[in-house]
Amino acid sequence: MDQPNTQNNENISHPDSIHRVVFMPSGRRGEFPTDTTLLEAARALGVDLDSVCGGRAVCGRCQVQLSLGEFAKLQINSSVENLSAPSETEDRYRRIKGLKPDRRLGCQALLRGNVVIDVPADSQIHRQVVRKSADEIRNLQIDPVTKLYYVELPKPSMEDQRSDLDRIAGELEAAWGISNLDWSMAALTNLSPALRAGEVYGGEFKATVAVRDESEAIAVWPGFKERLLGIAFDVGTTTVAGHLCALDSGEVMASAGVMNPQIRFGEDLMSRISYLQQNEGSAPELTSAIREALRELTENLCAEAQVAADDVVEMTLVGNPTMHHLVLGIDPTQLGVEPFPLILDTGISVSAQQLGIPINPGGYGYFLPCIAGHVGADTAGVILSQAPHASEEMTLVIDVGTNAEIVLGHQDRLIACSSPTGPAFEGAQIECGQRAAPGAIERVRVDPKTLKPRFRVIGVDIWSDEPGFEEAISETGVTGICGSGIIEAVAELHLAGIVADTGRMQAKGLDVGDHPNFIARGRNFEYVLHKSGDRVIRVTPGDIRAIQLAKSACYSGTKLLMDKMGTSHVDRIFLAGAFGSHIDVTYAMAIGLIPDCDMDTVASAGNAAGTGARIALLSRSARAEIERVTSKVEKVETAIAEDFQEYFVAAINLPHASDPFPKLEAWLAERGLGKS
Amino acid sequence: MDQPNTQNNENISHPDSIHRVVFMPSGRRGEFPTDTTLLEAARALGVDLDSVCGGRAVCGRCQVQLSLGEFAKLQINSSVENLSAPSETEDRYRRIKGLKPDRRLGCQALLRGNVVIDVPADSQIHRQVVRKSADEIRNLQIDPVTKLYYVELPKPSMEDQRSDLDRIAGELEAAWGISNLDWSMAALTNLSPALRAGEVYGGEFKATVAVRDESEAIAVWPGFKERLLGIAFDVGTTTVAGHLCALDSGEVMASAGVMNPQIRFGEDLMSRISYLQQNEGSAPELTSAIREALRELTENLCAEAQVAADDVVEMTLVGNPTMHHLVLGIDPTQLGVEPFPLILDTGISVSAQQLGIPINPGGYGYFLPCIAGHVGADTAGVILSQAPHASEEMTLVIDVGTNAEIVLGHQDRLIACSSPTGPAFEGAQIECGQRAAPGAIERVRVDPKTLKPRFRVIGVDIWSDEPGFEEAISETGVTGICGSGIIEAVAELHLAGIVADTGRMQAKGLDVGDHPNFIARGRNFEYVLHKSGDRVIRVTPGDIRAIQLAKSACYSGTKLLMDKMGTSHVDRIFLAGAFGSHIDVTYAMAIGLIPDCDMDTVASAGNAAGTGARIALLSRSARAEIERVTSKVEKVETAIAEDFQEYFVAAINLPHASDPFPKLEAWLAERGLGKS
Repeated sequence: MDQPNTQNNENISHPDSIHRVVFMPSGRRGEFPTDTTLLEAARALGVDLDSVCGGRAVCGRCQVQLSLGEFAKLQINSSVENLSAPSETEDRYRRIKGLKPDRRLGCQALLRGNVVIDVPADSQIHRQVVRKSADEIRNLQIDPVTKLYYVELPKPSMEDQRSDLDRIAGELEAAWGISNLDWSMAALTNLSPALRAGEVYGGEFKATVAVRDESEAIAVWPGFKERLLGIAFDVGTTTVAGHLCALDSGEVMASAGVMNPQIRFGEDLMSRISYLQQNEGSAPELTSAIREALRELTENLCAEAQVAADDVVEMTLVGNPTMHHLVLGIDPTQLGVEPFPLILDTGISVSAQQLGIPINPGGYGYFLPCIAGHVGADTAGVILSQAPHASEEMTLVIDVGTNAEIVLGHQDRLIACSSPTGPAFEGAQIECGQRAAPGAIERVRVDPKTLKPRFRVIGVDIWSDEPGFEEAISETGVTGICGSGIIEAVAELHLAGIVADTGRMQAKGLDVGDHPNFIARGRNFEYVLHKSGDRVIRVTPGDIRAIQLAKSACYSGTKLLMDKMGTSHVDRIFLAGAFGSHIDVTYAMAIGLIPDCDMDTVASAGNAAGTGARIALLSRSARAEIERVTSKVEKVETAIAEDFQEYFVAAINLPHASDPFPKLEAWLAERGLGKS
Repeated sequence: MDQPNTQNNENISHPDSIHRVVFMPSGRRGEFPTDTTLLEAARALGVDLDSVCGGRAVCGRCQVQLSLGEFAKLQINSSVENLSAPSETEDRYRRIKGLKPDRRLGCQALLRGNVVIDVPADSQIHRQVVRKSADEIRNLQIDPVTKLYYVELPKPSMEDQRSDLDRIAGELEAAWGISNLDWSMAALTNLSPALRAGEVYGGEFKATVAVRDESEAIAVWPGFKERLLGIAFDVGTTTVAGHLCALDSGEVMASAGVMNPQIRFGEDLMSRISYLQQNEGSAPELTSAIREALRELTENLCAEAQVAADDVVEMTLVGNPTMHHLVLGIDPTQLGVEPFPLILDTGISVSAQQLGIPINPGGYGYFLPCIAGHVGADTAGVILSQAPHASEEMTLVIDVGTNAEIVLGHQDRLIACSSPTGPAFEGAQIECGQRAAPGAIERVRVDPKTLKPRFRVIGVDIWSDEPGFEEAISETGVTGICGSGIIEAVAELHLAGIVADTGRMQAKGLDVGDHPNFIARGRNFEYVLHKSGDRVIRVTPGDIRAIQLAKSACYSGTKLLMDKMGTSHVDRIFLAGAFGSHIDVTYAMAIGLIPDCDMDTVASAGNAAGTGARIALLSRSARAEIERVTSKVEKVETAIAEDFQEYFVAAINLPHASDPFPKLEAWLAERGLGKS
């Protein structure tokens, strides 16, 4: 093929043997000799046209459409005769695999005149994924780190005794321009059987090779293989979630979760680190436990999607620093001891075999980078998902859990810290607290006049004061209060005047003995949300204190970062994490968990850490991006920050005065709840 | 330190603060300011002066000697005052670790005037190993692929919370200029414990890192570590040998061998490949068996040398293509089926963990490249050891075993083939044949007048016709004939006229019934070497035929290569392999195993394949060298070479006519054995 003339010389007349081609939507154009394939022309012009089989009419990825008509400005009259008629090969593809009537295979259609060619979205290598809801990934160009390459090779003969490796490496270079590949043992072990199993007809071997990062052949399959899979893992202290995705489209084929079996070593992070400190050399036990969970999850995901584990070649993983280190097999004990240094912070790829996870033996797991001793790969996932580093707006992202990981900043600067909220937001250390599960109270309203509550429980669509509620809850009962429920309860009790700004219960002149929702406890009292037989679901002074401590930790961490950034406002707030996504942001502000701001600037980010893991699964450049970004994030250590303790104490009270929370005040006024 | 002036400006007068230093034996010279250390000066001048601790007076590798006296031509009066007096640090090193009186530590001695400095051989990084005998390696610059780097790091604090990895990577770059290292999981897992175990005193971590190929940190130890080890494996069909070596000096610390446990799947290569063909999916069994042998050998070697397996970080491996593939875990079945293509031919490094060999978990095994379906990594080892590619002379190397691997050529061109000699040279398929072991006849003479034999057996120093022989053999007895014995027997029987050129026994007019050494067998007879009770050690017509076939295969393979090369003579011949080294080259020529040449141009190369493995173990550049050379070796396939069959038939006769063997003729004449 001659070197194309890619300049836009509109006025030159063309000899019969040179034709002009314009590809849409890119508008790239050039001139090529008769019988150049559209795929060749697209490649020469750098047009984003996919092909996995290298132009052999096998993969059908290079489908294009002819645009018919007179394109005056381009001096092109694009007509059917200006492309070769479908070849026998193309007809066979159309017959066997199917092809829309107006589609042509770019590798088979030959230039015979000037044409305008449309490249449909599904034929582009870098497909766009457009975000539709919080848990979907942001607009992303899919570009997985591992890709497939189909090759056909002459079989060996006494005259051509090249080794199998030489043979396939030569063809990968000739057909795809890929050279100097390392070969994994997994791929080498399978090379000879794959070539010979794929020997379907004729004198050629046919096989598809998976190449990672343009540098390593990690797997090989007989014949033509169309699709690779990956799993994004989100390893939490309590639960482990996995999403099985198609690497070419981003489609989530299965999602599943299991409990983190490390729970037998301690409920929360600190108790697990204590276990490690008290039992020297026990880290491998915890590593085995979590890897076993990842194995189980992998098997479940593959079973659910009905795919072979061998097709899974990539994994990504997010988690807090302790989980991150333990999955890697690194003892994280020092993360519990001042000065809390990480052992490893950069992003790292580890072979699936080393991790003992039963995907393709040539596959890899990529661990997103950690940021600081308490700010882990989960926060890296949150950043990748919410992209504060790509925004001009001052963005605050809070991943609320047992610790709140807080990131503040914009495209020029990011600061992060971790603040010890404790487990109250997850329903732990709350008298009637429980995990978010059917039967748990998740929404609470308190009538400021009657001081009576109404509520909703998870799994039931109607409020407790609506008809049919008793029947609706007959199956689950009312079992407790989850994180969002306790927050709303505290906020509503405060708004109703039952709880003072200081957090102290005040009976507003009622005789608490008379009111069915108040139970006297010495000089204090508890507030009853629901009674059913012996079971009394109630809010205690201790619960209110726990929520105050948690929200104060969250708020003062944020305040610390805002001070450090030198800003007194934020443009956007994202609440991330299972709890953060579930909470009503109005009440988050009502208890003072987040700074005062317009309600419509606050949004749930869903499980942003997991979404970040999926982004890293689908995009090689996203990995480079998050490594670059995290290496520049400034870390603030709340434990030694001079002002933190002061902020923490100052933020203990529930928000009241209009001064620091004018926007909350306005919102309350709207609801007729303005406080004096 | 200022940029040195490395030019040789003899006539410039120097201010007091600039001093001239000349390093011997390299003669490199330059000028440096007062108080420059000799190590710094050596580095700036590219002088080959070792240092593992980076100038901290820990490793003692940078020892130098001051040359005293007036060096007129250099304008230097080199005196003791021209170096700083030994520092406290240096004195402590001298006291604790010992230092010869005339030695100084290059990292501690400071320039105070002009000096001439000797760098002793043991302080050079690239130590020369000089060859002394066949099994020693050729002159070699030691430059192992994995090297040690000692670092000292500030401990983490609340003000410096960098991760352990960041911390050590930063120091490796600052002190050693090594950046962008990958870290193996083995090293990462051990990083935190190693740093903290090495925390002996002061506010610093101390550790030594092993870096492979300047790109991967594979292991880390607390404190200062001096030496790494490696094992060179020679995996034969029958036996597996290993040499444990110090990577810095090349010293062989232990050698050991075990039987190849694959023998239960078949005595020779072809029967093992048959087993694989008949039992599909059985390759992993053979892989497990050979890896188990390598494990055992590794344990034995470490026990013998009393070293920790953890100190072994590198392995190299040579072997025929079938063994090479099986150790790698690759099914070699196709090597037994025309067109015999290799699966893998390039040199390859595989992690010790993947191979299941219990050296340091971050260690690697390097497999030398294979050349063709029957010419393996063992031949690559032979080439590396004998270096025909580095010679101007036409060199012939024959590695004699069940197959003879033959390499012919010189610096401009190498050709190789494998010729199927069969197992006769190893004592198999010989009536009274046996492996070379105590009791086996290894030397034979036949009196051309009396037609009576005399012989020597392995383990006994006197001939069978000398006094005391019966007593000497009382322990072992005479148990059989080994490979070299049968060759000498056939040659001597031929020289004595008992065997005709065609290989047929001829009784020279004797009544064979009368002669104690002749046993009639129908129309033929056998020749008795030794009788002891019922046991009759003898040479049969079948034995002679087997040797004829074997030597003809060897000779015709050589002839084929010589024709292909277009040469009718060779300048040097090396016989390699256990048998090839043991054989008397005179008799090798007498039976026509090698082409006619001056006897003194023929030499034993010892176990050249194993020597090649040791060279690759000690030298990174040797690996690049052998990969480059083998990729250019021309392969000749004897099975389809048109002339091979013809050569083979023509070479069946034992050499007689003076025409093709004039030099043999001359040698025979010298011995009074000239044949008409």
